Amino acid sequence: MSGIIEPRTLSGFMELLPKDQVLFDKIKAHLESVYLKYGFFPLDTPVLEDSAILLAKAGGETEKQIYRFSKGSTDLTMRFDLTVPLAKYVAKNYGELTFPFRRYQIGKVYRGERAQKGRYREFYQADIDIIGDGTLSIANDAEIPSIIYSLFLGLGIDDFVIRINNRKVLSGIFAILGIKEAAADILRIIDKLDKIGKDAVFTELTKEGILPETAEKLLTLLTTKGENEKILEMLNEYKGQNELFDKGICELETVIKYIGAFGVPSGYYTIDLTIARGLDYYTGTVYETFIRKHPEYGSVCSGGRYDNLAEYYTKKSLPGVGISIGLTRLFHVLWENEFLNRQLENPVDALVLPMSEDLSYSLEVATGLREAGISTQVYLEEGKFKKKISYSDKLSIPFSIILGSDEEEAKKVALKNMSTGEQVICTLSEAVKIILENKEELKKAKKVIM
Amino acid sequence: MSGIIEPRTLSGFMELLPKDQVLFDKIKAHLESVYLKYGFFPLDTPVLEDSAILLAKAGGETEKQIYRFSKGSTDLTMRFDLTVPLAKYVAKNYGELTFPFRRYQIGKVYRGERAQKGRYREFYQADIDIIGDGTLSIANDAEIPSIIYSLFLGLGIDDFVIRINNRKVLSGIFAILGIKEAAADILRIIDKLDKIGKDAVFTELTKEGILPETAEKLLTLLTTKGENEKILEMLNEYKGQNELFDKGICELETVIKYIGAFGVPSGYYTIDLTIARGLDYYTGTVYETFIRKHPEYGSVCSGGRYDNLAEYYTKKSLPGVGISIGLTRLFHVLWENEFLNRQLENPVDALVLPMSEDLSYSLEVATGLREAGISTQVYLEEGKFKKKISYSDKLSIPFSIILGSDEEEAKKVALKNMSTGEQVICTLSEAVKIILENKEELKKAKKVIM
Repeated sequence: MSGIIEPRTLSGFMELLPKDQVLFDKIKAHLESVYLKYGFFPLDTPVLEDSAILLAKAGGETEKQIYRFSKGSTDLTMRFDLTVPLAKYVAKNYGELTFPFRRYQIGKVYRGERAQKGRYREFYQADIDIIGDGTLSIANDAEIPSIIYSLFLGLGIDDFVIRINNRKVLSGIFAILGIKEAAADILRIIDKLDKIGKDAVFTELTKEGILPETAEKLLTLLTTKGENEKILEMLNEYKGQNELFDKGICELETVIKYIGAFGVPSGYYTIDLTIARGLDYYTGTVYETFIRKHPEYGSVCSGGRYDNLAEYYTKKSLPGVGISIGLTRLFHVLWENEFLNRQLENPVDALVLPMSEDLSYSLEVATGLREAGISTQVYLEEGKFKKKISYSDKLSIPFSIILGSDEEEAKKVALKNMSTGEQVICTLSEAVKIILENKEELKKAKKVIM
Repeated sequence: MSGIIEPRTLSGFMELLPKDQVLFDKIKAHLESVYLKYGFFPLDTPVLEDSAILLAKAGGETEKQIYRFSKGSTDLTMRFDLTVPLAKYVAKNYGELTFPFRRYQIGKVYRGERAQKGRYREFYQADIDIIGDGTLSIANDAEIPSIIYSLFLGLGIDDFVIRINNRKVLSGIFAILGIKEAAADILRIIDKLDKIGKDAVFTELTKEGILPETAEKLLTLLTTKGENEKILEMLNEYKGQNELFDKGICELETVIKYIGAFGVPSGYYTIDLTIARGLDYYTGTVYETFIRKHPEYGSVCSGGRYDNLAEYYTKKSLPGVGISIGLTRLFHVLWENEFLNRQLENPVDALVLPMSEDLSYSLEVATGLREAGISTQVYLEEGKFKKKISYSDKLSIPFSIILGSDEEEAKKVALKNMSTGEQVICTLSEAVKIILENKEELKKAKKVIM
């Protein structure tokens, strides 16, 4: 055979060592379980789609980032988000779906941007959306934060805040202040508030042609902090001047009113009038979620309400509300900040060590353990006892079951607790009981998040 | 906005309706649970890799089928199996892994072949492999069939047989019969036995230059049916003529001897000397799995033993044994043959129907249900009772919980069993008990496979 090729993985593509993969899978499974608990159906769409479908809407920035190529006469693109495939799916299967249609999808998406720290070219998104047929109650917008709350709290992260705004309120304010035409530029500048601060934003706004007194008024209004009721009170003073604004205030009030009833304690959500989430997609409620200790990572879960999911594929009006978690990035953030419990996570509960050449008794024991719901590996390699037991140690398998001819004759097992070193001779069913009890305890003690 | 684009999905790419997606996910989750129970670690590798890595080995057929393209100066290929990425991973992370390294991976792979019935361009493979460092005990080869057995039996399929052969035995037979040089052609012809029959294979073999008496002898030998012990006895008569053959017989005997001890009842596995599984990869034990009633679908789970997993990426000797299930195809086979229980599978246990404008009580009830482990959706849309209850019906949600002002005042709930039509007024905790009991019963009654 010819030369050796240096094994490597492309930059921007995550590939984890076993113990980290187990942690990643646990987080992914938790997300799935919360989505299911709230009544979302799973969905799985292709990674590759016809470019004409995926790029029906896309503008310049998307076009530059995508992986697009031809195979035969077909122009293909790798999906760059899970929203466009959902829009296609709902338009395509409209007649077969029951609305409101609630779906979750956790899958890889592809963006060929320059790889940098915390940026991935292949990454998981975990999305939920609720799609209505013609209409969708504003109450759904209040349910979303309760799902975000369950997600993060269940992971063991309780130091987060969901920032909520309404695009109608924002557009209404611009209209009231007479700066509607500059909305796009203003949004772009306001987006930098966290990064460059109020003064620098003020300067940029005036450079953009906004009168200093208008910029002052705008910034005072948008950056008002305080209790949600106080902010709503302040906004209510502007009522009656602009129809869109009034509608937005009404939506925002309803959402804030219901969030508590949906089970989210105050302190976990706040109105933040500076949140905009881009320009042309969201039309009502918008959300961002920040880990308080790490604002530098930006929003770890974002989304909002849109009027038309699938305008490029159908004339039906399909309003919806949804959120997306950049799961690969979230994992990276948790990992980097030592949030994760990186004790070697092992999916194996017990390692059976056969000490005689005939494996029959060991295999019988292993089958018995598995039937009792215990993940069991039989160490099938030859070698000295020390080598065998060190395998158990290296993989942090909680129990070793050592089976020599003595154990076989007595129909017993030698059960060694690898963390205490304690070893007992007992029956298979006694061993099952001990291992299962220990597993329950480990489950309680070992949280994914430290 | 401009015109509407007809929403479509590329041919050869599976996209399921919600109820089928739920079934698919159940099958996938079952595979994962079995792999975990046998002590395999999860792995997730990128869909895109450097072409130089993925195509280190590939020959002409693979090259024609792959999705390969350039982005900037990088030559990229979408993975066409999960074995090559595993080889790269193990070679790359050799120092960080503990051997034997047991991993499972369930992921999408891509082959741009002509789409036809039951053939997919994007499909899931579900693989397990056990990789040794330098050596790997033959006992692992006997464990694999026990995993296949657990997989299929757990799905509710018990009409299958695992066919087992050994490539050393096959090569040894060719050497003994003096037809070693024609091995590649012979294997290709013998592979057609199921399709074209013994006589046609005989004709093709003689056309290939094999003497009629040799072809006769070969076919008699390979197609001998009967108990495994009988076949081994027959093979033993040829011992002492060829070293490779003798080694193969010894391996095959050991595997067959242990399979029973690993918990696979006889009747679920058989020696079949015609199984070869391609030319240049497998070097010992090989497996194929057939659904007896549907031999026309070919093998639904195949694999074998190989001497060198990663010879293109490292000089280390990494022997292994593994199997692969074409999960998308298996699902298609089950679906097409009405093996699947296609009663609408719904992940939601209960639908809360608020009958008053204030949602607070309904949301409180829903939170209580979820905390008790019940998947709950609140129907948040406005509309008449009939419309609300029909949503429950359409999605086959087992219970509706109707909450009007009477229920709220009494702090009770109206619980309607949607399949019996029975409605009771009870407390939340009574409702929880009834729903959970019913869920347990449904779980027992509703098998994925009919």
